[in-house]
Amino acid sequence: FDLLSPARAWCQAAAQKLPGGIGSKLCGRLQSLYETMTFLQEVVDILLAYITESFDRETKVIDFHYPNELLQRNNWELQDEPETLDDILISCRATLKYAIKTAHPRYFNQLSTGLDMVGLAADWLTSTANTNMFTYEVAPVFVLLEYVTLKKMREIIGWEDGRGDGIFSPGGAISNMYAMLLARFKMFPEVKEKGMSSVPRLAAFTSEHSHFSIKKGAAALGIGTESVICIKADESGKMIPADLERKILEAKQKGFVPFFVSATAGTTVYGAFDPLIAISDICKKYQVWFHVDGAWGGSLIMSRMHKWKLDGVERSVLKLTWNPHKMMAVPLQCSALLVREEGLMQNCNQMHACYLFQQDKHYDLSYDTGDKALQCGRHVDIFKLWLMWRAKGTIGFEAQIDKCLELSEYLYNKIKDREGYEMVFNGKPQHTNVCFWYLPPGMRYMEDKEEKKKRLHKVSICPHYVSFTRNKMAVL
Amino acid sequence: FDLLSPARAWCQAAAQKLPGGIGSKLCGRLQSLYETMTFLQEVVDILLAYITESFDRETKVIDFHYPNELLQRNNWELQDEPETLDDILISCRATLKYAIKTAHPRYFNQLSTGLDMVGLAADWLTSTANTNMFTYEVAPVFVLLEYVTLKKMREIIGWEDGRGDGIFSPGGAISNMYAMLLARFKMFPEVKEKGMSSVPRLAAFTSEHSHFSIKKGAAALGIGTESVICIKADESGKMIPADLERKILEAKQKGFVPFFVSATAGTTVYGAFDPLIAISDICKKYQVWFHVDGAWGGSLIMSRMHKWKLDGVERSVLKLTWNPHKMMAVPLQCSALLVREEGLMQNCNQMHACYLFQQDKHYDLSYDTGDKALQCGRHVDIFKLWLMWRAKGTIGFEAQIDKCLELSEYLYNKIKDREGYEMVFNGKPQHTNVCFWYLPPGMRYMEDKEEKKKRLHKVSICPHYVSFTRNKMAVL
Repeated sequence: FDLLSPARAWCQAAAQKLPGGIGSKLCGRLQSLYETMTFLQEVVDILLAYITESFDRETKVIDFHYPNELLQRNNWELQDEPETLDDILISCRATLKYAIKTAHPRYFNQLSTGLDMVGLAADWLTSTANTNMFTYEVAPVFVLLEYVTLKKMREIIGWEDGRGDGIFSPGGAISNMYAMLLARFKMFPEVKEKGMSSVPRLAAFTSEHSHFSIKKGAAALGIGTESVICIKADESGKMIPADLERKILEAKQKGFVPFFVSATAGTTVYGAFDPLIAISDICKKYQVWFHVDGAWGGSLIMSRMHKWKLDGVERSVLKLTWNPHKMMAVPLQCSALLVREEGLMQNCNQMHACYLFQQDKHYDLSYDTGDKALQCGRHVDIFKLWLMWRAKGTIGFEAQIDKCLELSEYLYNKIKDREGYEMVFNGKPQHTNVCFWYLPPGMRYMEDKEEKKKRLHKVSICPHYVSFTRNKMAVL
Repeated sequence: FDLLSPARAWCQAAAQKLPGGIGSKLCGRLQSLYETMTFLQEVVDILLAYITESFDRETKVIDFHYPNELLQRNNWELQDEPETLDDILISCRATLKYAIKTAHPRYFNQLSTGLDMVGLAADWLTSTANTNMFTYEVAPVFVLLEYVTLKKMREIIGWEDGRGDGIFSPGGAISNMYAMLLARFKMFPEVKEKGMSSVPRLAAFTSEHSHFSIKKGAAALGIGTESVICIKADESGKMIPADLERKILEAKQKGFVPFFVSATAGTTVYGAFDPLIAISDICKKYQVWFHVDGAWGGSLIMSRMHKWKLDGVERSVLKLTWNPHKMMAVPLQCSALLVREEGLMQNCNQMHACYLFQQDKHYDLSYDTGDKALQCGRHVDIFKLWLMWRAKGTIGFEAQIDKCLELSEYLYNKIKDREGYEMVFNGKPQHTNVCFWYLPPGMRYMEDKEEKKKRLHKVSICPHYVSFTRNKMAVL
């Protein structure tokens, strides 16, 4: 790194020639800039070496220690006195020494995706820009890129001219909570001012295989987990539409008002896709808002070969959760909520903070996205997705997704007739999840199914579940 | 950057000597690694040049264009086809060309803090580690550092032995929402399952100068903005305790159940500190949960000279919001919620997702923090704070905070008797906010106060407000 050495030469000359100490003052500034840049470059060298090591399958994935042990292994304490930059470099090395190499070819964990180099570069740039998504004036480019990307995603879904709204939020759980919040507001706008006491007892519906964030959201929003009615799933994990209709009718009879159905496109464990068309028909019939939680499987819409699994998603009259940080391997975190109706998010969430969202600015205020969010400040999560999209193109994402599905079918075929293994459900995987039990030798020929199940759960609480994201598998 | 050139020399030799194409295969891998590293280094060079430029006060802060213009100025579209890495570098340069230099000495905006180099380095490392805070197994070091840092923060507050709980959340608005959620759950635990219909009509209290996120939170949680009762503030922006007591009694008479008081330590516009001791006495008397929103002013607790402004914060029986990304100049975002009662967050938010939080892991499960959060995946926000704390030491943060308060007092003294300026309230600023009106010449001697106020609001909707964070001022 040699940006500054010509400047240093100049500086030495200037210190001698310029009068009144100006030269040496400038020199001092350059010196401090030089030290800063050297420090940053040293950190980058540490990071590049870490990446190189992570890519090498001969290295350890983790130098694992139990929490109490790890606390002892290094001095992690916060002190009164400052440390030198050299100490800081040592701390960076220690942190990476005990970190888990998430980019390592042999690292497997839930929904991990490896480390995309363009995504990483984009995240470094985002940190350097160090700004906030609340107004156009503090993040002009990033706000525009969010606008461009959300529009593209809506076009891919099939909403007319890509019209609608959306936001990047801190993860799928918050996106799903937004969805429920918007559905409630859409049906009972007075809830914003008057709270749930102005609203009849609500009922939300989702499959028994759906993500726990639906219940978590209901608890937070004051709807209550008991108002989330679980719909039965079939053997392969898909919601059974007839059971949905039955439960909606039951809820109505009990005096509940059905307001929200969350269908899942790609369930967490089975990778099942709920039948969206049948569900949307029922939603239409009973006038319930239809949301699709595609946090995990939404990305399949980018694959011409697999997008039929999401047929009907374009009918989601309200919204869709879609997490590019999962199947599309964007660095954490990157979760989009797409909303069909323009203005709804704004009406639901705005509080008109005059110190931030002045109405007399000289640009189109629809680019001040802050007041439609639940957050005030909002981290820039868009740039890594946008830059990766540019690098891969839509066809690159498609190829990556198709490859993962191909790999999971390969694994499925390898396991299904193998001695000592049992598939959790029959049939090819719909998404990249391959779910199976490993049967220890003593259990392979047990007759008593209940006893067998009980003992299996002692080997592992959940079934094993392997899913492919990018070139990575996630094992549970 | 020359990590790989010895390897390349070896590689050329190996390609010739090793049999069966193994040499050239290895060589190909090295080549691709080399290209990756070169690309990353090129991005870093762009970033270092951008930082150098940002520090130079002779450069432009922003090359501003209106949204529609900016859309035209570059090709920001997402295409089907991939781009080359050279194109990606061009996109990075274009993004920075039109970005606003938030590290520039002449950049002023709400709550901006400049760019701390250690914080930036830490954020780059965080991106490289690319992991998630939900379990210890995927983020061993970061989970520990969060534990160490939250404990340190609780010790500084003055909670016995630093006991309690906490979490880093995506911003102060979400932290405040957590606080309200926990207070409601603490008083009516059945709300989690049964929703607001099981709970009497609630009332929350906060000063008229408090942050809008209190109302936003109430709207989201199904409590309703009308249930947030605004308490009068005195001329300098502090909540009037007598009015709080009156409003609590009034609410009780109307059949509301007061459950939550959010006092503000450092209001957004005036920088006022509510009288925490008097407020906590009232909370105790009426058995209402006492929360302190110290998103902006909480950091003053690190200054021996100024922490008296937060006297009483240790009585916040429930929780405190404290945003190190504001006054402590940590890169965005970094917001802590500190909770006094251990286990409360877990009980309030847990959903026991078996696929993620298995109970049969071989380490202390209290380090799996995911189930106490509203989020499922959670971005690593801790490392930048931790590393900056190591670099500055507690005394470094203290000196930085004291300096900002000194600067704001200096500015206050410069403005208060200056012709054409009028302070929004009398008295020295309590925080770094200096609030004043600029009076155009024609308005300086107007008698009619109402008319004057009306015309002033045409010049600017809000008063001007200058606050110092680190060596930066934020101007509204």
